[in-house]
Amino acid sequence: MRKIFVFIFTLSISNGWAQNKDSTTIGSIYREILLNGTCYSELHDLCKNIGHRVAGSESAMKAILWGQERLEAMGADTTYLMPVEVPKWNRGKNEKGIVIIGRKKETIPVAALGGSVAGDITAPILMVKSIQELEGLTEEVVKGKIVFINKPLDAALINTGAAYGGGGETRWKGPKLAASKGAVACLTRSLTLADDQFPHTGATDATNIPAAALSAYHSKWLGELIDQHNDVIFHIHLECENGGRITQYNVIGELKGNEHPEEIITIGGHLDSWDVGEGAHDDGTGCVQSMEVLRTLKAMGYAPKRTIRVVLFINEEFGNDGGITYAKITKSNGDKHLAALESDGGGFSPRGFSTQSPDNRYAEWMTWTPLWEPYQLHSFKRGWSGVDIGPLKDDQVALFALNVDNQRYFDYHHTNNDVFENVNKRELQLGAAAMTSLVYMIDQHFSPLP
Amino acid sequence: MRKIFVFIFTLSISNGWAQNKDSTTIGSIYREILLNGTCYSELHDLCKNIGHRVAGSESAMKAILWGQERLEAMGADTTYLMPVEVPKWNRGKNEKGIVIIGRKKETIPVAALGGSVAGDITAPILMVKSIQELEGLTEEVVKGKIVFINKPLDAALINTGAAYGGGGETRWKGPKLAASKGAVACLTRSLTLADDQFPHTGATDATNIPAAALSAYHSKWLGELIDQHNDVIFHIHLECENGGRITQYNVIGELKGNEHPEEIITIGGHLDSWDVGEGAHDDGTGCVQSMEVLRTLKAMGYAPKRTIRVVLFINEEFGNDGGITYAKITKSNGDKHLAALESDGGGFSPRGFSTQSPDNRYAEWMTWTPLWEPYQLHSFKRGWSGVDIGPLKDDQVALFALNVDNQRYFDYHHTNNDVFENVNKRELQLGAAAMTSLVYMIDQHFSPLP
Repeated sequence: MRKIFVFIFTLSISNGWAQNKDSTTIGSIYREILLNGTCYSELHDLCKNIGHRVAGSESAMKAILWGQERLEAMGADTTYLMPVEVPKWNRGKNEKGIVIIGRKKETIPVAALGGSVAGDITAPILMVKSIQELEGLTEEVVKGKIVFINKPLDAALINTGAAYGGGGETRWKGPKLAASKGAVACLTRSLTLADDQFPHTGATDATNIPAAALSAYHSKWLGELIDQHNDVIFHIHLECENGGRITQYNVIGELKGNEHPEEIITIGGHLDSWDVGEGAHDDGTGCVQSMEVLRTLKAMGYAPKRTIRVVLFINEEFGNDGGITYAKITKSNGDKHLAALESDGGGFSPRGFSTQSPDNRYAEWMTWTPLWEPYQLHSFKRGWSGVDIGPLKDDQVALFALNVDNQRYFDYHHTNNDVFENVNKRELQLGAAAMTSLVYMIDQHFSPLP
Repeated sequence: MRKIFVFIFTLSISNGWAQNKDSTTIGSIYREILLNGTCYSELHDLCKNIGHRVAGSESAMKAILWGQERLEAMGADTTYLMPVEVPKWNRGKNEKGIVIIGRKKETIPVAALGGSVAGDITAPILMVKSIQELEGLTEEVVKGKIVFINKPLDAALINTGAAYGGGGETRWKGPKLAASKGAVACLTRSLTLADDQFPHTGATDATNIPAAALSAYHSKWLGELIDQHNDVIFHIHLECENGGRITQYNVIGELKGNEHPEEIITIGGHLDSWDVGEGAHDDGTGCVQSMEVLRTLKAMGYAPKRTIRVVLFINEEFGNDGGITYAKITKSNGDKHLAALESDGGGFSPRGFSTQSPDNRYAEWMTWTPLWEPYQLHSFKRGWSGVDIGPLKDDQVALFALNVDNQRYFDYHHTNNDVFENVNKRELQLGAAAMTSLVYMIDQHFSPLP
């Protein structure tokens, strides 16, 4: 008994010492970012001087060069660009939707879904309330119609990400399914919980008919109109172009590890956005937070044991080319990934992290969680890590997502409303501080699994 | 052993049943509010059709009548107005600040502090960095000067309320202290963590010199100017009027208790605001959330055991007359207050509750906390409950504050920026649901302390 007691006592003292040192360093990280952080001004620069940056665009290329220049300026030991093949889709200049009943016409805002083809079509509208309802309809009923999938997100869910997840098939699968049944175009209700009047764009699966989103407000209005009249006609005009594939780049900046440079901790967000707004919350914030991790560790004079690698991924939005390419190349290079961390839920107040990790990693990480109590992080659980880092998944690596308070996220997501002004400086900084402190802990305490 | 085991087993079964029923009801409360809640549209009505409503104003009187009418419409068993004497302070039509160096002049925005007197004064400026620095100065140095207290809030604190608390004396004590040393006017740096260009008003302790806030941005700018020049003059023009006291009202609406109508659970926010913006987060949100508690319980057909009383307090901002009067009158009426709950931290995502409670109440409440885990509430602790309900404190009552994510609060607080558009519908609703579920639990499980 005595021996065990001494052992436990020694262990708890040494644990106490380590936790004390960690807790002090984490305090310094938060202090550095809240007092001297630059992520907010970097985001301003990205949003206002470059703006939105859909993959394949000139603007995305500008952002890539910007990202490399900024990582260099922040003191990365090395920066480089990793070539990635991305699609080149273009919304075109004009898009228009007109609701027609008899001789009455009303123009309403539409936004082509990413990947849609062009078209100029007038046809009777056929409303369904879900993909499942559409699945049940015969080709005879659907043929020649403009299908309108008017399914609202489930507002009773607490987590808006779950609501978005539950409704996402409307946008992704809807147009392709409608086309397969002979529809001539497809309209989808925007994936938002707000009652707003602007459409939310986003990717749809390859289809040969024009596909566009209507705002939540106009979807509700049009739905009521269709319930009252059985002769509603819709005119849709889109000028989208699918222009093949071109080469763009993941932007990479590293702090070289002092003890185990071959062991990698990746932190990232995606640099591409949709071609509306400024891509502020989606995902400018994740990029500038990831850059802030590097800047902060450098500013604090911290010498990492492992290599800390910031990756600004290209084309998360429309095929995840950046994430897939990164995993492929790093695996073929034999990089030993200890962990990866992604921020792609918006620059809101952090709540914690979710992880996809091997069991022993998960258990190790859970012992750290009290360290974040003073910083109002409380949610530490298994769950989704992120689109960009997802392809890194194997039985060795621990993948983490920064989880934030996402009640406002789908008010901005994929719209003209996703602008710098809708990001709060402190919420953004607190997210960056949470990320930096997790990276610090991983660097200090993870070793490769046996 | 066996007996104890059976007892514990029975207890845990009965606990399990109760928790199961409570958890189902709490689920229904959240669902009702997220799907059918009216607090957001009530807030729109209050902000857009009445607007700001400083105590003593005609606008405050309009809000009082509005509040009673709305509580009636929501199905309160009884509504009434409780007379409260409040001060009548008026900002006046114009206010102006001019920085003068030699022949150069620059006009900057100023906002009279609540309670300030009028004045039209030009004098050399004397900058101090804190109340403590001002305390150390002699009358000789201060006499005839316009004192400028240029103390920023501490951005390194995680809780913005703590930062505000730490800096609050600048505004509350500063002008009176400056006057006592012969200053002719006093300027205070706005109590915010944002780098904004509009001043934040708020109450100052009775003083006989003009007192006004400068924006954080202009404070920083002026501070740098003063560091470079030793001859900075300031001109301040305020037209404030202190107009004695008049009678206004706490607005009260009740659901009568079925089993113990004499036992009271009070829920409230304050109906007055400052005379800028629309008093949306401070504290229109607390009022409409409290009203939502009553509406929701009524809509769910819930028959409360105890009397549930919504109070919209008048004049929290400038002397807490509503809260003090309410405590005095209810105590003299012999009301048995089981608990009171206040929302006055803005309509942001709820994080939990803090409480001032007798020990056994606190312990009872802590056993409930797992019920809120699905709703992302995680912070349950002893702490400040609220200004309005504070005077109810005795050795029987449990006082609670709704705690919210307050990173954005001081971007809006006491400014023209505190408008409806800066409130998110779901964040507001989730706060109302947290409040309603706490009120439900108290009604079900609290009995008067022995």
